[in-house]
Amino acid sequence: MHMRILDTAESLLRRHGLDKLNVVDVARAMNMSHGNVYRHFSSKAALRAAVIHRWLHRVSSQTNAIAIQDQPADERLVEWLKTLAVIKQRKVVEDAELLSAAAKIVQETPEVLDNHAMQLTTQLEYILAAGLADKTLPGVKDPQATVLAILNATTRYHHPDMVVHGGPPAVQMEGLNGVISLIMRGLKG
Amino acid sequence: MHMRILDTAESLLRRHGLDKLNVVDVARAMNMSHGNVYRHFSSKAALRAAVIHRWLHRVSSQTNAIAIQDQPADERLVEWLKTLAVIKQRKVVEDAELLSAAAKIVQETPEVLDNHAMQLTTQLEYILAAGLADKTLPGVKDPQATVLAILNATTRYHHPDMVVHGGPPAVQMEGLNGVISLIMRGLKG
Repeated sequence: MHMRILDTAESLLRRHGLDKLNVVDVARAMNMSHGNVYRHFSSKAALRAAVIHRWLHRVSSQTNAIAIQDQPADERLVEWLKTLAVIKQRKVVEDAELLSAAAKIVQETPEVLDNHAMQLTTQLEYILAAGLADKTLPGVKDPQATVLAILNATTRYHHPDMVVHGGPPAVQMEGLNGVISLIMRGLKG
Repeated sequence: MHMRILDTAESLLRRHGLDKLNVVDVARAMNMSHGNVYRHFSSKAALRAAVIHRWLHRVSSQTNAIAIQDQPADERLVEWLKTLAVIKQRKVVEDAELLSAAAKIVQETPEVLDNHAMQLTTQLEYILAAGLADKTLPGVKDPQATVLAILNATTRYHHPDMVVHGGPPAVQMEGLNGVISLIMRGLKG
């Protein structure tokens, strides 16, 4: 039921925008009483946050699949960074309504973004640790600081406000490739 | 006279915003006929572009002073990147009116921004060439590509849209320091 409510809320959000998303309309669309929806989500804010949380979780699930792949860690790192960029480019084009909703929700409920950032950070830390173990990233000295620096150095390719004005995907990927070669040399030691 | 007109226009822009900036008001503030101003700037758009061009030129003059300093090139590179970040942080706080005018003007007259970007690019290329000569940046393989990658990797610390939401200056400088150490290891070879 929880998931069906979120599906309905997400689809209403896509069609009518964030301002129109509320418990009563979700309940109506599901032919339920709104008391029933409130049993799953205690407020409109909780419902909205849950929709965006799940939407972001889909992103981090895709990147996580790369983090835990069975291949040299340096290759995983490159693929992880490119995949995150591609996902963001697609969202900007194909999922603008959810993206703009997410930008507002994370202002109201910063935990949603903190949680997402932590997922991504944990995945990168996992890759860097793997790179020390398999010796493909021997230049990593301080994994936590390095993860932060990698995310900051690639902001232009994953921050929605940058991606949306960053030009055609092919140009952005070329730019990202340049940044990746710039940072990989140090990480490969 | 050219410079006095620009001084007046810039100060009117600071006080009243871009929408109110026009040749007639500039002429009035200088007790001149507007024909006289038109002899220096052929249109309102040309006047506006010239104000922003000069404002951006002040930024690139400051960074250029670092590019041509007599010190090891690797140190110049670090100082150049930090100085650009500090300048942008100050503009966001202290010069918001000009910054927002600049964002509009470069849409209308992209040459103004292209010219600025070329100035910065040339300075960085100069530093990297110096770093190959003085052997402090022996890891630089393709200077042009490396310059672009360095600017892209530090976008978070010099792009106005990022700097304005990037948190306190001290936090931004800490982040930039992390990115700088990440990229310097490869450049130092």
